[in-house]
Parts: sequence; C-alpha cells; structure tokens
Amino acid sequence: MYHLLYPLRTFLIVSGKEEANVMTADWLTVISHRPFIVGVAISPKRYTHKLIKECNEFVIAVPTLEMLDAVWIAGTKSGVDKIRKMKITFIDSRTIETKSIKEAVANLECKVIDEKDYGDHTFFVGEVIDYTYNREAFESGMPKVGINFLAHIAMNKFVTFEKEIHMP
Amino acid sequence: MYHLLYPLRTFLIVSGKEEANVMTADWLTVISHRPFIVGVAISPKRYTHKLIKECNEFVIAVPTLEMLDAVWIAGTKSGVDKIRKMKITFIDSRTIETKSIKEAVANLECKVIDEKDYGDHTFFVGEVIDYTYNREAFESGMPKVGINFLAHIAMNKFVTFEKEIHMP
Repeated sequence: MYHLLYPLRTFLIVSGKEEANVMTADWLTVISHRPFIVGVAISPKRYTHKLIKECNEFVIAVPTLEMLDAVWIAGTKSGVDKIRKMKITFIDSRTIETKSIKEAVANLECKVIDEKDYGDHTFFVGEVIDYTYNREAFESGMPKVGINFLAHIAMNKFVTFEKEIHMP
Repeated sequence: MYHLLYPLRTFLIVSGKEEANVMTADWLTVISHRPFIVGVAISPKRYTHKLIKECNEFVIAVPTLEMLDAVWIAGTKSGVDKIRKMKITFIDSRTIETKSIKEAVANLECKVIDEKDYGDHTFFVGEVIDYTYNREAFESGMPKVGINFLAHIAMNKFVTFEKEIHMP
C-alpha cells in the first residue's frame, strides 16, 4: 500500500565509476539542509546496489517528462544495451567520478556516509558534495513553473505538475 | 540547494498520544515494500521531534489542495491555538494511539523502528502497521487522477498535478 504516498517524484540514480549504470528511484528524500544530505532506498536485487556498495558514491539526476522513455528503460530493462537504448549522454561530474547525465535538469553528486538495511531495501544516505543544474529549470535554486518535472503514479503511469501556483 | 529535488509532495505528521500536534513534512520517503517501512526527517527544533521520541509512533496524513490553509498553518505556526486554527478533525486511528486526520485522504499509522541523526535533522524510520484511506482518492490503493495531491515548490508556493497521464 505504499502507493498511498503517491504520486512521488521519479529520479535517476547513476552509479559505477568505470562503467556507469542508471536506475530509477521514487524512494528518495532530502534528510538535512546543512550539510546537504539525502537518502535513497535501493533493493539489493539491483545492480546499482552492488555498484554503490563498491564505489561509495552516486549521482541523482533529475529527469523531466521529455526523458520519459529513458526513465522507463532505466526502471525496467537491464543488460549491456540498456544505456544505449536510453539515448542519454554521460558527462563528467564536477567533483566525483560517477558520471552525470547531460539531459537531466540537475545532477547531485553524492558520497555515501551511511547505509542500513530496512525490510527489503537498503537505505543509502549520501552527502551532496557538489551539483550542477540547468538555469532554464531552476532560478536561484528554485524549480521553475512550466518545467515538466516527472512524478510516478504506478506501473507505467506518470504525471507532471500543473502550471498554477497555489498560495495559502 | 535541496530545492533541486523539488517540487516534493507535502505530508502532515501527527504526533503525541494525549494531545496531538501536527507539522508538515516534505522530507519523507518509502523505504521498504514488505514490510511497509517509511522514513521522515524532522528537525530537533520541532515539538513533533520531542513527541515522536516520547511516543515512538506517528501518523502520516495525506493532504490535498483543499487542505492548503491547514497545511500552511501546520508548517508555520505553533502554540495552543494551532490545531484550532487548522480546522481539522482528529479521529481515532485503527491501531495506534496517535490520532488520524479525518480530512486527509489517507492516514498511515507508523511505529518507530529506528532513528538516526544526520546533519541538522533526525531521520525517523517507521513501520506502517495500519492505514485508512478515502476510496474517492485511491482505487485499489493507487492514487486517482483528478485528486489534487499537494506538492511544495518553495516557501508559500504549492502545486498540484496535471490530470493527463503519460505512458512511455
């Protein structure tokens, strides 16, 4: 019944220093403002789990609706052809060895500072030690309205946000 | 720069067995499917932090746009009048002592199974041991399109989701 908390934002996790792998993750949150710390739950069944354990770093790439096909492939396919099918471009990150994704509107570079198993997932806690973002999507670090940030409803159903801002 | 991960869903956290308190939380995620485990980051400055430490349980209430004023009060006000100003109705939860919120479209009843300090927040991990939800908002546990689930952009700016479903 975890869908009671959905729709949830969908993100891409890049892992692996020598050969980059990408998976989707809905189960991700900010944990601390200063220092900037995040957490992401990843199943031990995922190849990404092994790569993060080995490399102790990962990148959170922020996709938009325009990357929906790539997001779907990242979440459902595996194997050597996966990255090619996604039609994404890896670029060097600013500080860590794990690559960023050019097409994403933001890339957050994380160093693992803790990990713990809860139920059927491992919760990796990472400090965001650097980041890059597209100034067309964020202004002064705030998300711009009109950008089709992606959220997941269930299975192959995704939504984005309305353009109207509501203020109490 | 945590707003690079925004807009993020906004939830309400109910805490306290004898006298219920409510705060807003954007920093919340699912961690495990089976058992159903969630995590939420809460600042030690919050009264909710003290109440969760004392009671070892909390409720995640899922608000919609219709509750925006209550959400804003929960996130910005404190003191004895707060709950009255929110104009919400507490109802008994099914299994735990902490109350649920009648106006919310779902209430997840959580028992704390772990907690850890990271940076300026404490991350409380809870097992969802019971829940209730409004069948007008969820069908077979999946969120329905047309329900104005609430997401936070920054400060007093909130958005909801478009009605169009995108499928890869």
